[in-house]
Amino acid sequence: MDQDNSENGREDAPVLPSCEDEHGGIIVELKEPMDPTEFSLLLKSSLSQWKLQGKKGVWIKLPIKLVILVEAAVKQGFVYHHAEPHYLMLVKWIHETPSTIPANATHRLRIGAIVLNDKRELLVVLEKHGRFKGTGIWKIPTGMVEEGEDIFVGATREVKEETGVDSEFIDVLAFRQMHKTFYQKSDLFFLCTLKPLSFEIQIQESEIDGAQWMPIAEYAAQPFAEQHYVFKYAADICIAKLESGYTGFTPRPTTSFLSHNPSYLYVNELLTLPISH
Amino acid sequence: MDQDNSENGREDAPVLPSCEDEHGGIIVELKEPMDPTEFSLLLKSSLSQWKLQGKKGVWIKLPIKLVILVEAAVKQGFVYHHAEPHYLMLVKWIHETPSTIPANATHRLRIGAIVLNDKRELLVVLEKHGRFKGTGIWKIPTGMVEEGEDIFVGATREVKEETGVDSEFIDVLAFRQMHKTFYQKSDLFFLCTLKPLSFEIQIQESEIDGAQWMPIAEYAAQPFAEQHYVFKYAADICIAKLESGYTGFTPRPTTSFLSHNPSYLYVNELLTLPISH
Repeated sequence: MDQDNSENGREDAPVLPSCEDEHGGIIVELKEPMDPTEFSLLLKSSLSQWKLQGKKGVWIKLPIKLVILVEAAVKQGFVYHHAEPHYLMLVKWIHETPSTIPANATHRLRIGAIVLNDKRELLVVLEKHGRFKGTGIWKIPTGMVEEGEDIFVGATREVKEETGVDSEFIDVLAFRQMHKTFYQKSDLFFLCTLKPLSFEIQIQESEIDGAQWMPIAEYAAQPFAEQHYVFKYAADICIAKLESGYTGFTPRPTTSFLSHNPSYLYVNELLTLPISH
Repeated sequence: MDQDNSENGREDAPVLPSCEDEHGGIIVELKEPMDPTEFSLLLKSSLSQWKLQGKKGVWIKLPIKLVILVEAAVKQGFVYHHAEPHYLMLVKWIHETPSTIPANATHRLRIGAIVLNDKRELLVVLEKHGRFKGTGIWKIPTGMVEEGEDIFVGATREVKEETGVDSEFIDVLAFRQMHKTFYQKSDLFFLCTLKPLSFEIQIQESEIDGAQWMPIAEYAAQPFAEQHYVFKYAADICIAKLESGYTGFTPRPTTSFLSHNPSYLYVNELLTLPISH
């Protein structure tokens, strides 16, 4: 590799394999091992050329097996953008205009599932781990929405996993935003109602110590601690829905020619407008 | 340092400075430079002892200036958990029970603000950058909710920043979940209504080309492209709220002795129950 080329940003100097994004940026996604010194020189040369070409943000995605290259990128002014267990994404803004590098994800999504049968019994579980362990408190099934999963899909999945009960998603009754639930990140907890489609219980042995259909009044009378008020209000809001015309938000698919998959708009169930193309 | 100590996990072997978390885990937060070889030996010794002590997850938070230590942690079986511009969090599960390492954040939050005055005029802006640049389309103010910020705070802040208008948050009218909006991450977009408290417009020159109060019918008649359907439905839902009893979710503080700051539960405004301690 010719050092002079890289210093001067000549058009014929070697560059890292890359592709362009929709915002005038460059994405380098390395998959194969590379010598750190060679990577460093190539990166320098590439940055010079991308600057000449008026590129804006430069992204480098490094699988964890290429951890040896992280230092070289940081030394050339890259910062971390985000990380998942098996890769690290670094970014550097190389344009004179102000950076428009998008923010990192800030929230995890969790669901609480109100599954009520025709006898006004609520599907409840005893948790094996976590804060409820050993308290004897029966709570509604809860769980984390997975990456890329729709809220209504996550809710039915968690109910099925923990209790074996099939259900149909009805609506989001309420949601709660809490901050600093892990480090600087936040949680959004969606309280959902689901209609049971099956009633036989088969518990998830690894997570759950027991599950049952419990009269809603009995559920609400439990001694929920302060930090668990949302489980108390679950019953109140549920009863308000049954008796006082409380309405939640139902998911409605909004298809578009731009995407193969619909995205979902959660709107008040009273809305009668067509929400789709 | 005595290599034998580290191999055998003896109680008197040196360990990295650390503290314990609430879940039986260990947090190492390095701030000062350390030689990578020394770090590697200390980490090995520490892991042995933490295993003997029955610790579960081990977290290492490395500021970007200590990037030189990342490789040593990965070589000892750590994976990435998350990253922000100036630090990287690594984690390793060292207990025999199944890992309960919490998931990373998956969503960014955005708001769209419906600010309507008494003349049924909507506060709209012309964006200087992004997808609406040069389209001539007047849209409602939108923006990213910042890390640690409440949705209702983010909405009033964005309206003030973009247009200079003071407003009071009313409710969330609807929300939309979209996946893979950047890499594997998702967006939640909250469509909110706000009541204007001032009416004089002063635009944010860096982001906005113009702002005005526009009759809602005129706004809705604009040729929104398919990917911008949510801006069209903003008007429909807003009219449904004005005319057909459509109700959104209002934030209600839920105080607790466990936290200095309240967290907010967004519930249907029709709910008359007291949601607080």
